[in-house]
Formats: sequence, C-alpha cells, structure tokens
Amino acid sequence: MSGNTFGKLFSVTTFGESHGPAIGCVIDGCPPGMALSEADIQPELDRRKPGTSRHVTQRQEADRVEILSGVYEGVTTGTPIALLIRNEDQRSKDYGNIADTFRPGHADYTYWHKYGVRDPRGGGRSSARLTAPVVGAGAVAKKWLREHYGTEVLAYMSQLGDIEVPFEGWEHVHANPFFAATGDAALVARMEEAMDQLRRAGDSIGARINVVASRVPVGLGQPIYDKLDADIAYAMMGINAVKGVEIGAGFASVCQKGSEHGDELTPQGFVGNNAGGVLGGISTGQDITVSIAIKPTSSIRVPRRSIDKEGNPVMVETFGRHDPCVGIRATPIAEAMLALVLADHALMQRAQCADVRVTTPKI
Amino acid sequence: MSGNTFGKLFSVTTFGESHGPAIGCVIDGCPPGMALSEADIQPELDRRKPGTSRHVTQRQEADRVEILSGVYEGVTTGTPIALLIRNEDQRSKDYGNIADTFRPGHADYTYWHKYGVRDPRGGGRSSARLTAPVVGAGAVAKKWLREHYGTEVLAYMSQLGDIEVPFEGWEHVHANPFFAATGDAALVARMEEAMDQLRRAGDSIGARINVVASRVPVGLGQPIYDKLDADIAYAMMGINAVKGVEIGAGFASVCQKGSEHGDELTPQGFVGNNAGGVLGGISTGQDITVSIAIKPTSSIRVPRRSIDKEGNPVMVETFGRHDPCVGIRATPIAEAMLALVLADHALMQRAQCADVRVTTPKI
Amino acid sequence: MSGNTFGKLFSVTTFGESHGPAIGCVIDGCPPGMALSEADIQPELDRRKPGTSRHVTQRQEADRVEILSGVYEGVTTGTPIALLIRNEDQRSKDYGNIADTFRPGHADYTYWHKYGVRDPRGGGRSSARLTAPVVGAGAVAKKWLREHYGTEVLAYMSQLGDIEVPFEGWEHVHANPFFAATGDAALVARMEEAMDQLRRAGDSIGARINVVASRVPVGLGQPIYDKLDADIAYAMMGINAVKGVEIGAGFASVCQKGSEHGDELTPQGFVGNNAGGVLGGISTGQDITVSIAIKPTSSIRVPRRSIDKEGNPVMVETFGRHDPCVGIRATPIAEAMLALVLADHALMQRAQCADVRVTTPKI
Amino acid sequence: MSGNTFGKLFSVTTFGESHGPAIGCVIDGCPPGMALSEADIQPELDRRKPGTSRHVTQRQEADRVEILSGVYEGVTTGTPIALLIRNEDQRSKDYGNIADTFRPGHADYTYWHKYGVRDPRGGGRSSARLTAPVVGAGAVAKKWLREHYGTEVLAYMSQLGDIEVPFEGWEHVHANPFFAATGDAALVARMEEAMDQLRRAGDSIGARINVVASRVPVGLGQPIYDKLDADIAYAMMGINAVKGVEIGAGFASVCQKGSEHGDELTPQGFVGNNAGGVLGGISTGQDITVSIAIKPTSSIRVPRRSIDKEGNPVMVETFGRHDPCVGIRATPIAEAMLALVLADHALMQRAQCADVRVTTPKI
Repeated sequence: MSGNTFGKLFSVTTFGESHGPAIGCVIDGCPPGMALSEADIQPELDRRKPGTSRHVTQRQEADRVEILSGVYEGVTTGTPIALLIRNEDQRSKDYGNIADTFRPGHADYTYWHKYGVRDPRGGGRSSARLTAPVVGAGAVAKKWLREHYGTEVLAYMSQLGDIEVPFEGWEHVHANPFFAATGDAALVARMEEAMDQLRRAGDSIGARINVVASRVPVGLGQPIYDKLDADIAYAMMGINAVKGVEIGAGFASVCQKGSEHGDELTPQGFVGNNAGGVLGGISTGQDITVSIAIKPTSSIRVPRRSIDKEGNPVMVETFGRHDPCVGIRATPIAEAMLALVLADHALMQRAQCADVRVTTPKI
Repeated sequence: MSGNTFGKLFSVTTFGESHGPAIGCVIDGCPPGMALSEADIQPELDRRKPGTSRHVTQRQEADRVEILSGVYEGVTTGTPIALLIRNEDQRSKDYGNIADTFRPGHADYTYWHKYGVRDPRGGGRSSARLTAPVVGAGAVAKKWLREHYGTEVLAYMSQLGDIEVPFEGWEHVHANPFFAATGDAALVARMEEAMDQLRRAGDSIGARINVVASRVPVGLGQPIYDKLDADIAYAMMGINAVKGVEIGAGFASVCQKGSEHGDELTPQGFVGNNAGGVLGGISTGQDITVSIAIKPTSSIRVPRRSIDKEGNPVMVETFGRHDPCVGIRATPIAEAMLALVLADHALMQRAQCADVRVTTPKI
Repeated sequence: MSGNTFGKLFSVTTFGESHGPAIGCVIDGCPPGMALSEADIQPELDRRKPGTSRHVTQRQEADRVEILSGVYEGVTTGTPIALLIRNEDQRSKDYGNIADTFRPGHADYTYWHKYGVRDPRGGGRSSARLTAPVVGAGAVAKKWLREHYGTEVLAYMSQLGDIEVPFEGWEHVHANPFFAATGDAALVARMEEAMDQLRRAGDSIGARINVVASRVPVGLGQPIYDKLDADIAYAMMGINAVKGVEIGAGFASVCQKGSEHGDELTPQGFVGNNAGGVLGGISTGQDITVSIAIKPTSSIRVPRRSIDKEGNPVMVETFGRHDPCVGIRATPIAEAMLALVLADHALMQRAQCADVRVTTPKI
Repeated sequence: MSGNTFGKLFSVTTFGESHGPAIGCVIDGCPPGMALSEADIQPELDRRKPGTSRHVTQRQEADRVEILSGVYEGVTTGTPIALLIRNEDQRSKDYGNIADTFRPGHADYTYWHKYGVRDPRGGGRSSARLTAPVVGAGAVAKKWLREHYGTEVLAYMSQLGDIEVPFEGWEHVHANPFFAATGDAALVARMEEAMDQLRRAGDSIGARINVVASRVPVGLGQPIYDKLDADIAYAMMGINAVKGVEIGAGFASVCQKGSEHGDELTPQGFVGNNAGGVLGGISTGQDITVSIAIKPTSSIRVPRRSIDKEGNPVMVETFGRHDPCVGIRATPIAEAMLALVLADHALMQRAQCADVRVTTPKI
C-alpha cells in the first residue's frame, strides 16, 4: 500500500530503476490454471521497447523477460508471478550536471525534495523504462481477459502535436511507426516530417492516445469510489507524462444537452456510446473508450533555465538518447493499464456478485 | 476495500441511499488534537445542498450533520469520526415506470445487471445525494490541511454548456448562483437565461469545474501508481457525472512542445505551471490545478427511447425535482475530493519521509 | 486502512465510543440478494449485552440495532450496510480520578501516550462495548455463510479461571450463565460460587473460550501471509482482553511427534484434527477449531498502585458496573470474528478460484 | 491484497517456489536515506539457511541475496527494494508418489483443492524455504528500527518437544545448535540426543520459540482491529507450522486474577509485564514478549495412511532432506516477522500522531 502496488485482486507490484541491476514486478492474484510462458509476454514488451524506429529513443535494451515464479509446467498455479527484466544498459556515463540540477518539467525536482536523495541514472525510478514491467503484467491480464470473456484491449495514437489522425481501422496500427489507425500515407509522411524536424531541433511534442476495450462484461465497477471509470482515470493518469483523461464523450460532454448525451436503449442495444461503456461507475457491456493526453518529454536539447541544488540559476540541456514523442511508445502501456483495471474488477465482480442472475437480455 | 472506502491513511467510508433512513460516512485516520464540531462541517454541506437557487433541484433537505464519534470535548481523539445525515425526504412517491425501466445515461441499467436488485428510490446509492457525506469528510480534511500547511482548496465553474467563464477572482464565486469566478453581470445573466430555457425545455446541460489547491507542501505523492495526479484523477472521475479530468495544461499538452511545456525554474520559483503542481507524480509546491468535465444529468423530462427489464422498448420521461446542470452544485464536492486526496498523501509523506531534510530552498 | 476496518472483501469499519452518542459499523461487501432485517441481528446482540445474569456488568443498554442502508425491501442490495446503535447510558458521572490516572492493565496509559488526548467516559473506544457492532456485523456474515455453505460458527467457555469445563454438547451452552458446554449442575454451581466470591472481593478472573466452525468449504485462505489461520489469529487477538490464540492442537503441538500430529487421511476422511481444519494456511473442510485466552478485566475494586498524568504515584480503584469475567460475554464476539474471517475468505476464493474443479472427492 | 503482501506502510510482497528459478520479495515503504547493502541482509539469511548443524535439513543452498533496486550509492532511495535469491538446488528428482498423494499434516491436500494444480517440487510455495525472503526483509526492518529507536528483536527456543529450556541470557543463543538461551551443557546434550533419536526414527517434533522486542516506542498500534498484538498474532500464526501464539502472560492469564494480572505502575515504571508490552492494542514501551508453538514437520519417514488424488488409500513416506524440528531454524523468522510488524506500525504512528506531545514522563 506504499504506492508501488496497482490493483486489489489482480495486483501488480513493480520495482527497479532505469539503470539499476534489474526491473520487474510481482503479479498477485492471477487465477490458477491458465497456460502462460514468456512467449505470451515478450511480444508486448517488444512493442514498447526502444529502437523500433528512428522516431523513438535509440537506447538498446533487449528487455528480455523471465518468469521467476507462479508457473509450473506451463500453467499458472495461483501463486505470485514474478517477472524479471535485467537492465543491460547500465554503463556508467557522464550525466553532466543532471545529478545536481533540475530539468524543467522533470521529476528531478520533486524526487529530491521528497526523498532527499535521488538516483539520477537515466531518471532512476521516474524513467519511462519502468512501464516495461507494467506492460509485462498487462500481457498476463490481457490473456486472462481474452480467455474468460473474449475481451480485447487495443490502443492507437489519435493525435501527434496538432496533427489529428482519424480512426480508419485497427489493421493500420502496426503498419506505421506511430501506431496510428490510418492508412493515409500522406498523413503518415506528415507525421514523419514533423518528428524529423523536432529531432533536429532537439525538442519534443505531445500526443493523444485512444484506448478501447471490447467485449467487456457488464457489471464491472463499484458504484462509489472504486468506480470502473475512476480506476481507469487513476490507471491512465498514472502513466508517465499523462496530463488528461477522458471516458466516452469526455470534455465534449460539457457542451452536450442531456437529450443528446444520454445513450438511448433499444431491444437491439445502446444507440451511441457517449458513456464510453460506463454508467454510474459500472460497465454497460459496450466498448470502454478512453482518451489520454501525453505531454512532451522534458528531456530535450533546447537549453532551458533552471536551478541547482543550492538554488543557483543554471542552464540545462539534456543530451543522450531520448524520445521526441513519448506518446509513440505509449500504446502498449495504455492497453496494459486498462487490461489490469478490467481484470481486477472482473475478479471483484466474481467475489461479490457470483450468484447474480438477471432476467434482462444482455445487449 | 470493497469499493466504498476512499483513501488509505485519511480514509472515508460512506454508506446510504438517497431515500433510505440515513446517509453518512466514517472518517478514519484524522489525527488527534484538532478542534472539530458540526459548525466546521455544516457550512460546506449547505453550499452543496439543494434549493439554494432556482437553477438547482428544489428537493427540500436540511442535510443536518451529526458527529457520532471521534470527538471528545470538541477535539478529535484519533479514533473514527462518524458523520450521520438523516434523510428527511423519504416520502413514498410514484416512481412511475422508473423501477422497471432504464433511464438513458443513468446507472439504472448497470446496477440492475450487476446486483440483480436495485433501489429505485431517488436513484438509490447512485444518487448525487451521496456526495453529501463526502463534502462533510472533505470539510474535516480541509480544516486539517489549513491548520497544518495553510493549504486552501477552492473550486469554481469555468464553463456552462458552451458559455466559457473566465477566472476573474475568487471573490466572485459566491456572488452568483453558478459559483463562477466572474463579476461580469451580463455573462451571469446569459447563464441564467440559458438555464431557464433548459428548465422550460425539460433538458439538461454539462459544465466544466476548475479546482485549485494552494500552499500545498512539496513532496506529496508516490512515484509509481499512487502518484498524486493519479489519485486526483481517481477522485475526480469518481464524482457523479464526471467524464474527463485534466491536471495543469491537460489536453492542451498534446499540442505543446517540450520547450514550451516544461516549466522553467529560477531562484525565485517556477516560471509557469503547465505541470499543474505535479511532476513525476509528486507535488512541486505550486498550486495544484485541476479541471473536470461534468456531463448533463440523465434525469430529464424530454422523452427518450429505452427498454424495460424484459427488454421491451419503452419511452422514458423523468418527472420530479432534478438539476438541469449538476455541475452547479459540484464545486464543494470537487473541493472535498481534492482535499481528501491531499490529506491522505500528507499523512503518507509523514510516514515515509518524516526525516528528510533537503538543502535546496523550497521555492 | 487506518486500523478501524476489518476484512478485505467482506469488510467492517466500526466507529464510536462507549459513552458517545452512538456506536456502529459499515459492512462493505455483503453480496446482494440476501434477505436481511434487524431481526437477524438483534438476537446476537442480545446474547452479548450486559445485564443477562448477576455475573456480568449490570449496565443497562438496550443495544437496539438499526439498519441504515444497504437493504431495500428486506433484501441486501450489494451496497454498504450501516448498523447504528444509540448509546442510551450517556449520563455524566463521576469518573473520580480515572481521567487523570492510569488503571493497571488498562488502555488508559497507551491511549494517552499515543493520542495525547483520551475519552475517559467508560473507556471510550477501548471499551468492550465496541464489540457490539462487531457482533452485529458477524450476524450478517453468519447468515451469509449459512445460506451459501451451511457453515455454522459456535463458541463456548471451556475454562473459568482454574475451573476446566469439558465439552459435553452444544445443547448446554445456553442453559447456564457462562455459555459453558456442560450439563453438570455441580460444575456450574462451582463456577457461580467462584464468580460470587470474586464479585464480593472486587476482583476479576480470566477465561478460555473455544470456537468451532463446521461445514467450512475447503480451499479458504491464501498460502502466504493471508493464511486462514493467520487471519483467525489476527481476528481473535484483536478481541478485547485476548492474550493467546491456538488453532487445532495449538501449544500441545510442541510436545507432539510428527507421526502423532499429522492427521492421516482415509477414503472416509481425515483421522483426527490436530490441524484444526487448516493446512498450509488453507481450510481442509474439517471443523475449524480455535481456542483463546481472555485475561481478567483490569477495572477492579482492589486498590492498585499507579501514576497520574504528571507521573506522581497514586492508588487506583475502579468503582462502577464492571464484569468480573469479561470472558462470559465473549462467546458471541468470538463467533462473530470467526464468521467475518470465513466470509471474507469465501469471497476471496470466489474471486480467485471460481473456475477450479478438482477431481478428488471432497471428504 | 491478494494475500502475498505483508504490512501496510512498510510492506513486503514475496514470490517464488522452493524449486523454481528464484525466490524473493519487494519491500515497499522503507524510508529513504538509510545505508543498506547485501552485507546487512546476508548474515540473517545465513542463520536461517539449511545445513548449519546435523539437526537441520542438509539441503545445500547458498541463499545468496541480491538487492535489485531501491538502493543508490549504498543508501535507500525510498523506492521499492527488491531482493532476489536464486534457487541453486533445482535438480529434477524423483518425488515418488508425492505429486499424486497427500502427506498427512501437509499443505498438499489444501493446495490441490484450492487451486486444482500444484507444484510438488519441494513443497512449492508452501515450503519453509519461502521464509528466506521474509528474513531478508526483516533484516531491513531491523536495521531501520535499530537506527530510529534503538529497538532490538531477538528470539530463542524455549522448548524442544517436552524439554523446557529456561532463559539464562541472550549470550547463549548462538552457542548451541538450537538457539536456546541456556549455558547448561547437560541440557543441550539432552536436546542433541533427543534430536538424534528422532532422526534415526525418521520422525519429527514440535518446539516453542520466544521472541522479545526491546526499546519499542510507546504508542504503536491501532486500538481496534489493527491492534499491535493482533498484527503480531497474524504475523506469527502466518509462519509455517505455527499453531499457537501468546502475548505476555498468554494462556496463563486464564487462571490469573485481575489484581494479579494488571501490571502496576510506579514513577519508576511498570511493575511486571503480564501485558507483554501491549495494552488496548497499543505498545506500552515495555518489552514486547511473544511465544509461539511450532508443530512437528509433516515430512517424515514414518509410513502414514493417506489417499491419492482419486481418493484411493495409499501409504506415504517422505524421503529426502528434511528438518526433524523446523522450530530450530525458526528464530530468525520469528524475529523478522516481529520486526516487520513494528516497522509498519512505527510508520503508521508517524503518519497519524506526528504532532502528539504528551506531558507524562515516558517510563
């Protein structure tokens, strides 16, 4: 409960720093009897890992996952599943004045004031690298959800800076380096050019990611506090660099009338999904639709004003291998977080409402 | 942990339904030695209660709070503080076909499918009335924060439907029925007219609320998962009708460059607050700034298509006393939720980092 | 999580002090669809309440329970069930020097040092009176267990001071004022005489209580940390005045050989129950057998040495209505705690292992 | 919260099985700024490890601990500390019929029925080997307690089967293979002879361990539910093979009068410690004294009746390297668990009562 555990029944506790010996997590609560091996997890990690295109950091990390426990003869036993990823890129390097100054927009400042000590190597625990164990845990949650409910969780980039990218189909997502759901080659080229310019300028940019879960069981979520949408917001805002979260119509709801927003029902199902698949904190059975805002990374080459630990003014430039748009690698992370929330609530629903049988046809 | 408890160290467990005998909460973890009486709590409840203007529901509820425990001779003892609010308006009324049908955009549908049973009286537990105990608990958190850190948490309505309301100063917030931070009488008149039209039309509208916490200690928040901003997102999305949450620059971050977004530091302090007072999940000591989207209420007189429990098509109209814009009464709720998050993290910070003394001058 | 909540999925949060306005609890996680009314709870409270014989405190409290929420038309809705018991005996009385001194063996001393403030009225929160809400919550858990598994939880006094009382059958438990499972009138008379002597001497005595749960499902308990027996030990040691807990053979295991202790299995079932129904932290399906040691109450008339708040030596005598043996009223409390542990683990088992179907015939 | 996490603020999540790739734990909540290296942890593990005398299992395991995270330049950073211990003894061996039968007194039976799958290699997760990570985590807690309060936690064996061993001083504990606090060579010889006989007979025996924490701050513990003694009972009963827990006078309290049990206070301090250092669930500042009963191990060579997975009768003998008395290696485990409970409550106390200043001289 000291902050590094996510979830109540299907829970994940992570550990590690960017340049320490290893990073990893312990997944507690995955039900027994599910086939599981590293082959279920590694592909998800590979989607997140650096170096997949020139638009993301070129840091070389194999990010090879090892299952340390909780699986016997290829099947989960119901005991904790520990995942370990050794850090290969631990070389001691020149951090310049990073260790003694604070990068604008970076957690340097707050870690120092909170803990009185910080690990400056690659951002330490605040590094986006720490999303790797989460992606690993999410792979386990995804598999369990798929096997039990047919649930699928998928994400795509819907906006890169001011370039909005319409959704044209899931088949496009892995056919471009941005995980955008478009087949429009000109649009992709525009994105590539924007990224190349940024890289040359040593600057970075924000992005918007959409996440969708389909075939979600109806009834997930607790009506007050642990609402499904509240837990989704918690999960999403907890991803590095996220500054905003929307469910369903999101901020567009502000300008909607009730007669427009409330999704009507017919015997054939809901008409529209302004709710984003959640009403009163509980899943409706429709697609869960989430949209998140990712800020531009703070580690840039553009010189910026800051202070050092003594409070003296300094200029800070961050050299090294960084992502001009951290949003690009965020799609598997967002999927993982949503999957973990759903698996957690699915177990909670089994605990509390295992005996419920309603008469209404589920639509 | 079954969903009805909010917070870990400064925690609130609520109970009750809109038209049951009573609603209330148990506040666990409020430190001992603080002066506390109903007079500290009642004014906050009065701000939230119905009937304060023609623009909110006319339901008559005194919402008189009683402290049942945890206070001895006017001082908190460190034991649980139970708050009780008796429901006065329990009269049996004609719910028409509400009990057997599902209002579009309402939790009716999901409660029924989750629990197989539901309390249709005034929305039961999904009623916005259940925010009253939260406001009560928030008053206790606010007082504790104020006494220990000088922290203040304030909210205002920044948008009503498509009417944007600029922030012109806190002194205006209680001088108009919308809790808007404007002294522009023409703008307020425009809002009143918009509301009157809606009420006549039997329709409802969304709103945007901004919440600001000032004089927040630096160092609150756990870097992974229980980040301060993640917990704020959880708290805000958990408020009835909220569909979106932003911290700092929020969704505007998507179009920002890193050289623009990252708030520079000087010996005199931060230059700008795109971060919204949180970096790496930890408070910077700047103002915490949050913005939330509130959907239009689903209980409207405009007839809408729905189904009944057997899945047959029906038309639904909701008569009775309802809020054309639930956002109007949401400011004290948003303040309460943010105060509860801050108090919780402040206690956590005392637990973990009580010995930390950094050399940097806090700015 | 600040200490006043018991259980994870079937959880109870209590509040109140002995002489404050009210005591009560919030039960969170009771599944929906179970018939429930005050009539299910009141009889359990009546067993615990004072004044049932001359051997217990003569304080007059009706201990009338009111269900405030979570039940609609006589059926649980899956939302929190709040129980309220008003304190009738709040008369201001002369506490003599109790408020400024510390009774030997009493929580006076520790409350004062922990909180810096304490409620001396009747022991405040440390009063045994605070077990009343627990008994109420236990009644709900008992009913749920009975309906779902046929589980019964029963307790009896097996020792009063140095008088050991053999188990002769459950039918005797309510036929004597000590809840002893004996039909031996001479033995009961011996107990009555011992109690009368104590009362005249203004002294108190300890007791041993045995608790048995029968028809417990196999598979309850988490193998490390949240073992069923660990949670039972936590629950039992948490009852006021308990100083020791045994499961199964308990301390007798120290002198046993492995060939003697390990309960053999045959196709007809286990041979013996040294395990007390728990192996490796998980229920075997046999009876859960627990034994607890209850210390003599510290509130006695015999003068004792102590100090006051300034550290000066004083003599302390406690006048008023007290129990010469708090063990007498402890049987419903021990039953309630065991029932709550079992209900909690039963829900956890549904969450995690709902799909498990083993081939071995359950014995 | 799925059972494999211990503690709330200073928490430990363990993972691993006896013969899987590795075992370990994640310690979350250890405050920043404490010097820490493997050298602080390894000695505690070495006390617990097998093969230290002929009286314990001869399994060869180096039990070499590696710190994976949470420490930078030899100092804790406030982030999770992961400990990893690779299993060296993973050789595939002949488990005979263990995988298909149930050892009397062993968790085989319950794991199978709970999970429908089990890892039979060396007991899998139910192995006493899983106490190694706990001992590692306990070493961290011990160091923190020592540095902050001077607290020391020590244990000794006070009874081996029916041989009672009086406490004669801590200096004796590491001078005999039983961790007994006696300098009586004849008594030790009697214990050795008893053990040699048992080993020859292929049988096992129980033991009693006493644990003492000295220089404990006053005020640790929450008065209802998370009482210090309740959490100690939970911690102790959760150790493999423990069947009973006593605090202070324990079961002897049953026969005590109130005038005898309640520890008097004088300006110089408490007179006696029947309370075992806890009153009303809160520490008094005296020594915390705990005693636990450890059952004889169930893995013995003596043939015993059991059944196989199909329910057929079988005879079971357990060959291999086992402990004739698991109590011998239990002292570091009991110390670790008590240290973890105290560290957890110490952090909670800082959170809730950081401002409390009482006037009474602490005695």
